[in-house]
Amino acid sequence: MDKEQQIIRKYFYPLANNEESLELKNDAAFLKKNKLVISSDMMIEDQHFTKDNDPEILARKLLRINISDLAAMGATPYGFFLNIALPKKDAMNWIGRFSKGLCSDMQNFEIKLFGGDLSQSSKIFLSMTVLGKIKKHCHDVNFSKIDSDIYVTGNIGDAPLGFKFSKNFYFSKASKKTKNKLINKFQIPEPRLSIGLKLLNKVEFCTDISDGLSRELSQVSNNSNIQANIFLDSIPLSTEVKEILKLNDRNKILEIILNGGEDYELLFSSSRANRKKLNKIKNISKIGFFSKGKGINYYNTDGKKIDFKKSGFSHF
Amino acid sequence: MDKEQQIIRKYFYPLANNEESLELKNDAAFLKKNKLVISSDMMIEDQHFTKDNDPEILARKLLRINISDLAAMGATPYGFFLNIALPKKDAMNWIGRFSKGLCSDMQNFEIKLFGGDLSQSSKIFLSMTVLGKIKKHCHDVNFSKIDSDIYVTGNIGDAPLGFKFSKNFYFSKASKKTKNKLINKFQIPEPRLSIGLKLLNKVEFCTDISDGLSRELSQVSNNSNIQANIFLDSIPLSTEVKEILKLNDRNKILEIILNGGEDYELLFSSSRANRKKLNKIKNISKIGFFSKGKGINYYNTDGKKIDFKKSGFSHF
Repeated sequence: MDKEQQIIRKYFYPLANNEESLELKNDAAFLKKNKLVISSDMMIEDQHFTKDNDPEILARKLLRINISDLAAMGATPYGFFLNIALPKKDAMNWIGRFSKGLCSDMQNFEIKLFGGDLSQSSKIFLSMTVLGKIKKHCHDVNFSKIDSDIYVTGNIGDAPLGFKFSKNFYFSKASKKTKNKLINKFQIPEPRLSIGLKLLNKVEFCTDISDGLSRELSQVSNNSNIQANIFLDSIPLSTEVKEILKLNDRNKILEIILNGGEDYELLFSSSRANRKKLNKIKNISKIGFFSKGKGINYYNTDGKKIDFKKSGFSHF
Repeated sequence: MDKEQQIIRKYFYPLANNEESLELKNDAAFLKKNKLVISSDMMIEDQHFTKDNDPEILARKLLRINISDLAAMGATPYGFFLNIALPKKDAMNWIGRFSKGLCSDMQNFEIKLFGGDLSQSSKIFLSMTVLGKIKKHCHDVNFSKIDSDIYVTGNIGDAPLGFKFSKNFYFSKASKKTKNKLINKFQIPEPRLSIGLKLLNKVEFCTDISDGLSRELSQVSNNSNIQANIFLDSIPLSTEVKEILKLNDRNKILEIILNGGEDYELLFSSSRANRKKLNKIKNISKIGFFSKGKGINYYNTDGKKIDFKKSGFSHF
């Protein structure tokens, strides 16, 4: 358990002893009677972005990472609250561009602005609380079972590699086109809303991969007291990531793919009995299974176990 | 209209064209079908507090200023989401103390923690989104009418003077006891939940005084296209503030009382026909009335109009 998890467990679990919080183990709280799920996420200057970043892109990302939590719950976007703190200098212009990006993605995702707060601050601080509607059920389970299959949506690793290129365009070998495509994936993630809905009643836990595949898997393994087994060859990769794996040190790149965050794909598990049903859903991949034990085992093509040092992103 | 209002009107009004937002003119959004009101507020290092401030006090204040918005809506506390960003150094200890303060006031106000987000940051950022329940109605009106009476709860000016003393203990003449009492009022505001409930169906607009009496009055005057008339002698003052008025330049202190924020008392209006009903409610004071015109007129004991230069707190 990393320090961020320790802080949450020690200081906030005891305060969240209520039905709605789902023990703080899901991507959102669940207000059963109101058929609402609610989640809150931040983006902070010099942690998640720099002041040079385009405010239009930041607005779209902030909205999308919050909506991604709705996708992980199997909810439909409803509305949001936006808190912005920023320096006085250039505030009008910055917010003008920010609101332009926000507006375009509000239309894309059919979500409404309900309220918020505006303040001055030496660094830019963005906080959003998002509400989603559910019909009957949502993904309110936060554990898995032995023998269940482990799945992800889309491709893994685009965003963490895009993040690396956004910091240092030359950090590894790749074509310019590949680098720009991955940076774009990092900047404008795609919330998996429709898949989240299709998975309702077919899966156990479901979460979005915000802090890296390894870290999300570790948390479910811990919560469920079981072991995750992942076949590296089964992890879905984009042609861009495949190109980078070929041109560079494979293990170094693999570590980034597994431990880097920001992919915002869904990670979920389902019992073997559901394989036929899940086969019908497009853009999902089975990458492993749970077994007795603890932690995560990664297996290479030849079935050999591989050890990776890092274990995902923790803020502390 | 100050710059903060200009930004909100220009960039966020157009995005909040929905029933729930109440045109961003109330203290919270109103989800009619769900019988919920929701509001979101921030507290930021070097804007609202310094890093030396006691985290226990900060937690209580953050919760209370958010709950104050529920009071202004006539709602009952339900739950909240908490986003914290803070420096890595000493994070465990800081959050330990913060959560202690939070816990004690969660019990006082019978409110639940539903979720949140934790991140690292060079300065402390606190953001809270609070949910309140309503039975049938809430204070969802954001304008007033000619001839309506203007009221406030409690006393005005304690917190803005307390804020001044917290920055500079010697900024004006007063006893040590008085200074400490006002600092305490600034640090631990009292959300007027029970009065907020009693006012349901008896008043027009209702807001909490977070950014100063003058600024809140200006906004209602603008929204309603009418003029606020305030009798300075009718503004309720604590014995501490009266002491300070006697010992110092009266006009200088009056400007702080009228323009300084953070009192978190309620400000509302009601038609003359309701005077009898309102007389039965304790701890409220009639301070003036609305008339044809615009802006705010302040009147002295002798009925003479007084001009004050500043007009409340704007972040921009």
